[in-house]
Amino acid sequence: MKTLRLHPQDNLLVALDALPKGCELSADFKACNDIPKMHKVASQTIAAGEKILKYGQVIGQATQSIAAGEHIHTHNCAMGNFERDFAFCSQIRPTQFVPTNAKRQFQGYHRPSGKVGTRNFIALVTTVNCSATAARHIAEQARLGQLLDGFDNIDGIVPLVHSSGCGMNPNSRGGHILARTLAGYAVHPNFGGVITLGLGCEAMQLNHLMRDYGLVESEFFRAYNIQDVDGTAKAIDHGLGIIREMLPRVNAVKRQATDASHLTLAVQCGGSDAFSGITANPALGKAADTLVAQGGTVIYSETPEIYGAEHLLTQRAETPESAQAIVDLISWWENYTLMNGVELNNNPSPGNKAGGLTTILEKSLGAMAKAGSTNLRAVYQYAEQVKEKGMVFMDSPGFDPVSVTGQVASGANVVCFTTGRGSAFGHKPVPSLKLASNTALYERMTGDIDINCGKAIEGGSLEASGAEIFETILRVASGERTKSELLGYGDNEFTPWPMGAVV
Amino acid sequence: MKTLRLHPQDNLLVALDALPKGCELSADFKACNDIPKMHKVASQTIAAGEKILKYGQVIGQATQSIAAGEHIHTHNCAMGNFERDFAFCSQIRPTQFVPTNAKRQFQGYHRPSGKVGTRNFIALVTTVNCSATAARHIAEQARLGQLLDGFDNIDGIVPLVHSSGCGMNPNSRGGHILARTLAGYAVHPNFGGVITLGLGCEAMQLNHLMRDYGLVESEFFRAYNIQDVDGTAKAIDHGLGIIREMLPRVNAVKRQATDASHLTLAVQCGGSDAFSGITANPALGKAADTLVAQGGTVIYSETPEIYGAEHLLTQRAETPESAQAIVDLISWWENYTLMNGVELNNNPSPGNKAGGLTTILEKSLGAMAKAGSTNLRAVYQYAEQVKEKGMVFMDSPGFDPVSVTGQVASGANVVCFTTGRGSAFGHKPVPSLKLASNTALYERMTGDIDINCGKAIEGGSLEASGAEIFETILRVASGERTKSELLGYGDNEFTPWPMGAVV
Ligand SMILES: [Ca+2]
Ligand SMILES: [Ca+2]
Ligand SMILES: [Ca+2]
Ligand SMILES: [Ca+2]
Ligand SMILES: [Ca+2]
Repeated sequence: MKTLRLHPQDNLLVALDALPKGCELSADFKACNDIPKMHKVASQTIAAGEKILKYGQVIGQATQSIAAGEHIHTHNCAMGNFERDFAFCSQIRPTQFVPTNAKRQFQGYHRPSGKVGTRNFIALVTTVNCSATAARHIAEQARLGQLLDGFDNIDGIVPLVHSSGCGMNPNSRGGHILARTLAGYAVHPNFGGVITLGLGCEAMQLNHLMRDYGLVESEFFRAYNIQDVDGTAKAIDHGLGIIREMLPRVNAVKRQATDASHLTLAVQCGGSDAFSGITANPALGKAADTLVAQGGTVIYSETPEIYGAEHLLTQRAETPESAQAIVDLISWWENYTLMNGVELNNNPSPGNKAGGLTTILEKSLGAMAKAGSTNLRAVYQYAEQVKEKGMVFMDSPGFDPVSVTGQVASGANVVCFTTGRGSAFGHKPVPSLKLASNTALYERMTGDIDINCGKAIEGGSLEASGAEIFETILRVASGERTKSELLGYGDNEFTPWPMGAVV
Repeated sequence: MKTLRLHPQDNLLVALDALPKGCELSADFKACNDIPKMHKVASQTIAAGEKILKYGQVIGQATQSIAAGEHIHTHNCAMGNFERDFAFCSQIRPTQFVPTNAKRQFQGYHRPSGKVGTRNFIALVTTVNCSATAARHIAEQARLGQLLDGFDNIDGIVPLVHSSGCGMNPNSRGGHILARTLAGYAVHPNFGGVITLGLGCEAMQLNHLMRDYGLVESEFFRAYNIQDVDGTAKAIDHGLGIIREMLPRVNAVKRQATDASHLTLAVQCGGSDAFSGITANPALGKAADTLVAQGGTVIYSETPEIYGAEHLLTQRAETPESAQAIVDLISWWENYTLMNGVELNNNPSPGNKAGGLTTILEKSLGAMAKAGSTNLRAVYQYAEQVKEKGMVFMDSPGFDPVSVTGQVASGANVVCFTTGRGSAFGHKPVPSLKLASNTALYERMTGDIDINCGKAIEGGSLEASGAEIFETILRVASGERTKSELLGYGDNEFTPWPMGAVV
């Protein structure tokens, strides 16, 4: 199979190998030019001014007439004004939910909050870098002391340490982001018990955090400051004492059969390559659509990567408020990056173009494909609690640990992470599946990568890869370990979005 | 002793307890008012317009005539224009170096670079968060596998992990700061061997870092990417293999007698209280002066904490260039904080005022006291290699882990950290001494704090506390463990200054 048709409505094929001029592409037509690998070739005559469709979506217009078999690229394809139309809510479609008899289940931990966890960890949330070492030592001493022996239903203790919490204004945007993130982890259903540990004199005051987010001490939530218990050694002992008390209670919660509608899937990409947009991302999109049809939630993020193609989301927004929220986010990012001297530019780079990407729409569609095709139901700030079902957007940078930290704080209980280059990533307390965009990567880094989406263009299909992803999500949500969990990833990737001046 | 005179030239005393009106303060005068604890009381008549001196320095002028025994505070003391004069280089004095027969020594590790280390660790420097887990696992597996057994001259393996390295522009100011910091650790004399570990596809490219900072692979410096060795498991094995090769060579370097001039002391404060400015900081300043007299180096930092009193440094600058560099840093900080919506304000807060601080000069002098009284010899950017001897300034935020990370990258091989509230801090690979400003704190957190500077106002003296600090520095530089080393601090505080937008 030398070419790939991504969608039945497309008027082009993607060349999966370099195709020499004259090679036969179908019974009807041959390649009119040399077509480089991963580039596009017209599968029918396209008149000048006609729309060019990939993923069944407009990626531009023909700037001249194009014959079947002709190379499509910047010389004959460009975006017109039409493609930039925000057209709020113009492309929404009714969501096709599965009938009751097709509902799928997983084995999850039901929490008093009504939320369902996919893991059962104990958290050590830190308010400030100054309590990081104490938190890590509590976790390490619990492990060395084999405190968890006999509590087989507990997955471990997670120290959530970070580099901030002081030298900052807790009432700034950055301060609110940090507080919201810490509070989001404190109520995450993958934690059966939570201990929050401060130093005492930091800007991010523990008692303010608890007050602002309604966190109240209970047998599953405890909080204290190192200075209030007279130093590091006592703080560690105190933490170990709390853990000993919590263990039997946390261990008592058992997995139960749960509708897949309780899954909240974070979709993420990192280290993308030319295959990501035609294999791993659209395959993940199929799985995302399946989850939405099951009544579940999909969190799509990485705002800089939709830049220039944000109208593709505003058109899919179910409400004008959500569409406007996307427009507002983009405007905030334009201002934020300008102010910080960083270029916000999602246009195809020279390397992207050499790899076959022609327009910003085409590039963005390749990234957006991982969120599937359903309506945009709501837009959230970074680390804000997600309440809606269906596909939602949460603002975040594209940088993986920062973006996933926000998605998990928002309530994601499974992460799917596509990669073409081979990202090394895991994130406690949430299992993260890694999806390779190409077989070579999967074979080279099979210890790191869970699923090979390269198969989709090697005799498989996006549907088959999407189904493999969805079935794997159900197994992993029920307790099966991901590759990154087996490798012990997840203790160093908690990264609340750093913003604002450190003083 | 109810009151403290900080300097022979002062025209005031500090009340060490609340002093009731009428209580006898000397043979000559009594308290004219109730004097709150830590507040100032005139020790002689001060005419309206006359300078008010604390630490032998001007903290303001009398706005009305003040009698001996009268409370000095905002009602009768304010800053005039005189005190704001930058007067470049106007207050410099010849440095009094000790004669050869008074030179002090410590036992240090001599490196091929000519620099001298106070510890002998192996570093795992990471270019990006994506290699953090692999680096930590290498260190942990080396420990579990008891690889260091028999290499008693090696202090351990330090994974230097952080939250950045991608989703950023490596050519931005923030990118340069990160690269300079990583390179500074890679050449730090407390490392006998260095392994630098990247992922492969990150913005902070390992080969660019090596090229830009002249880092070349050798038997003591190795570098590789996870993607280039086909994944996490092989990357860990590869790192362990390098460590096995390095161990005998790193272990072979022995401590040798070394002049104290090879010490580079980072001074730092965190969690200050009303005592910090009259006990721990000036006592540390005495030790800093002693080290400068020995030909050593003192790195003073925390730029926001000199704001409003920067002329105290420009007056002490040895060259107009250094004085101008201070002025430029302040102007950069004004712009940076304004742009980020943070207030750069070092004025005494209502709490400071209640605690007895009257003017910004008085507050800044309390913090500046820890750098001692010698000339300012040079000004450096954050994490820039310090080449000058004597007292130098390195730009940084006040936030402890960020500031110390810069000081260590610049070459500090000992840290002294004053605290009034009880900071929890340590920083591998450099020993960090913690100095309490008050006895109550020392007694409460004696497991965390090395030296009680509260003694200086309880029958001791600043000179005696300064000498205790200096002697302890020599012992610790020679291998004696600090409290934070005994507690196992230092693996979670490496925090390159985060700056710029994460995208
Ligand atoms: Ca991405
Ligand atoms: Ca990403
Ligand atoms: Ca190499
Ligand atoms: Ca400070
Ligand atoms: Ca500080």
